[in-house]
Amino acid sequence: MPDFTRLDDVRARRPLIHCVSNLVSANDCANVVLAAGAGPIMAQAPEEMADITAASDATVLNTGTPDEGRFRACLLCGQEAARRNQPVVLDPVGVGASPWRLKRVRALLEHFPVSILRVNLGEARALTGDAGGEQGVDSPGPASLEERSAAARALAGRYRAAVLLTGPEDLVTDGERLWRVSGGSGQMTSVTGTGCMLSVLCGVFAAVEPDPLAAAVLASAFWKTCARRAEEHSRGPGSFRAALLDAAGTLTAAELAAEAEIDKL
Amino acid sequence: MPDFTRLDDVRARRPLIHCVSNLVSANDCANVVLAAGAGPIMAQAPEEMADITAASDATVLNTGTPDEGRFRACLLCGQEAARRNQPVVLDPVGVGASPWRLKRVRALLEHFPVSILRVNLGEARALTGDAGGEQGVDSPGPASLEERSAAARALAGRYRAAVLLTGPEDLVTDGERLWRVSGGSGQMTSVTGTGCMLSVLCGVFAAVEPDPLAAAVLASAFWKTCARRAEEHSRGPGSFRAALLDAAGTLTAAELAAEAEIDKL
Amino acid sequence: MPDFTRLDDVRARRPLIHCVSNLVSANDCANVVLAAGAGPIMAQAPEEMADITAASDATVLNTGTPDEGRFRACLLCGQEAARRNQPVVLDPVGVGASPWRLKRVRALLEHFPVSILRVNLGEARALTGDAGGEQGVDSPGPASLEERSAAARALAGRYRAAVLLTGPEDLVTDGERLWRVSGGSGQMTSVTGTGCMLSVLCGVFAAVEPDPLAAAVLASAFWKTCARRAEEHSRGPGSFRAALLDAAGTLTAAELAAEAEIDKL
Repeated sequence: MPDFTRLDDVRARRPLIHCVSNLVSANDCANVVLAAGAGPIMAQAPEEMADITAASDATVLNTGTPDEGRFRACLLCGQEAARRNQPVVLDPVGVGASPWRLKRVRALLEHFPVSILRVNLGEARALTGDAGGEQGVDSPGPASLEERSAAARALAGRYRAAVLLTGPEDLVTDGERLWRVSGGSGQMTSVTGTGCMLSVLCGVFAAVEPDPLAAAVLASAFWKTCARRAEEHSRGPGSFRAALLDAAGTLTAAELAAEAEIDKL
Repeated sequence: MPDFTRLDDVRARRPLIHCVSNLVSANDCANVVLAAGAGPIMAQAPEEMADITAASDATVLNTGTPDEGRFRACLLCGQEAARRNQPVVLDPVGVGASPWRLKRVRALLEHFPVSILRVNLGEARALTGDAGGEQGVDSPGPASLEERSAAARALAGRYRAAVLLTGPEDLVTDGERLWRVSGGSGQMTSVTGTGCMLSVLCGVFAAVEPDPLAAAVLASAFWKTCARRAEEHSRGPGSFRAALLDAAGTLTAAELAAEAEIDKL
Repeated sequence: MPDFTRLDDVRARRPLIHCVSNLVSANDCANVVLAAGAGPIMAQAPEEMADITAASDATVLNTGTPDEGRFRACLLCGQEAARRNQPVVLDPVGVGASPWRLKRVRALLEHFPVSILRVNLGEARALTGDAGGEQGVDSPGPASLEERSAAARALAGRYRAAVLLTGPEDLVTDGERLWRVSGGSGQMTSVTGTGCMLSVLCGVFAAVEPDPLAAAVLASAFWKTCARRAEEHSRGPGSFRAALLDAAGTLTAAELAAEAEIDKL
């Protein structure tokens, strides 16, 4: 089992999480970092990427709503973080949406190592070159546990990173070890940016947990627990979204340990 | 009457709606697309406009918080959508706010056909050259039904598009037919981006309803019904906003048919 | 005491507030302007900065998530506002986060006068060159009232502006007069963008109140009163955030006068 008291460490140390974010979810990402107990900083200018990376405890690169400038910022930021042995999370939002986007994300992955790759099945398949097809930035249809774990393992092996593959059940693997995180809420896909928010949570936990696999499992379990709790206060996607942040801001390490549904496969 | 079961079609087919959005309302727009039952994709890079347009079922161009790059993206996107006979919605936010903005929006309208123009009275008058004046991105003061319908018809005739002119009562016209959608909530103007959200809803319905006029009427009726329902859970603009998304995520086609206030003028 | 009926003036005159905003808080800023009773317009293109400034009643420049283009827009906008004797509020978000950011913000302050500078302690110290250190965009640890008022006075003196220094207690000074605004809620720091929102509120009040010091005191008192009221409806940061806007949209001038905790030091 991962060490759930890492959540207490987050709240005690308040690590600074640098998020290169997108147009859609920047606000939600900053809010979930705060709710979890860490501090966010969002920047994008190439001129300050190195300085801000140097001051941060973890870096989360999100390539949604990308342009050439954003990719340049991600490159500078990832390289500096690598130089500093700082954990880097990459969320290649909708990477299969265009050949340009796929090429640019792959170029990032060739230029610096990533600790955690947070993807859905369509994104995993696009990155490994498997013809899975992807509709927009959301995941394709249902796939078996075997298909999903194979996709996650292949991606982890290719880029030597921990992979957090999200879905009704999240899978986390470093290519060898494989964990499953269950529970959560079906309403999660009715709110935009919940995947981006999980990615910054990976950064939050990676700032205090040296094992990227364990950090990703903690982030996944934290988020699924928040989702299940949020359902109780939901009258639809608007109130569910507010309730997600409420849950993130109030969930304790002991409650997380008691409610998380994790098993090793 | 428009065909209210189009809402069921949205939820069954889950069309992909490409939104070129703005800094202020991108998140709300993605969330309302999801709540209505469709899938959003937001992009902005010229390099991927054609690919993402090709994968989409409808395109919604919002020119709020514009810059030259955004207008270029809108141009590429609109031209590709036209080539594919895909519905295009244009929301020329605050088009009268500067001569530069007006010139750039008019240039878009000269380079590709638009299915639906979603405007307030100030924007309609700015586009047709009528000296109506406009304060910021919000509509000017009260105007009679005659003035409003004349402005909507003039705009529809000039750009051969369905026009959805919003206000306390929404008017929808293709220059000949004219529909009025009533109801809604006075609180709608106390939340930013509700006009942008209506524009993406036009895209959602246009993806499943071939007649742009009918799609705009459906979007207007859907949104006004959501607004009226949201009022019941509102303690002010913050909770009203969350309740709007709750309503959008739970309203059924049958309820929409029962509650919509539409009449043909 | 400041004139609390200025809130009635805002709602009667509905001033137009031009906000050059950032990626994270643009939506929240537009919503709080609306909730307070004014009208927001957000723009960023250099081509329209002068026109939009000319149409506005106050200008709020926020340099969070900056890039060179954003700084250019702020420069054009600030210079035009100065030429028109329009109030300008500057929020130098996380100005100490990088030498580049500090240099660019200082350049702005050398090129046009600012009516109100809205800062936290770390930002104040970065701007005056005091080695205070700053973690991310949030304030450093606790400091005494003396330290905080000295930092605020130094900054006000250096840039001949009213300074609103936020914290558990807000301090407002023009270098001579010094006011303290107490109350509020400890939950304020658990939501991103609440500082940015206070800055646009400074713009809202500065549009109707000629004395920048009084405008800043009113904005501070308004926001702290909203925060205290929001706590009553809070189950965590998500519901607190919605409740903040609810409070801003419903608070009356009489209630503000009764609940504000202001004293002159």
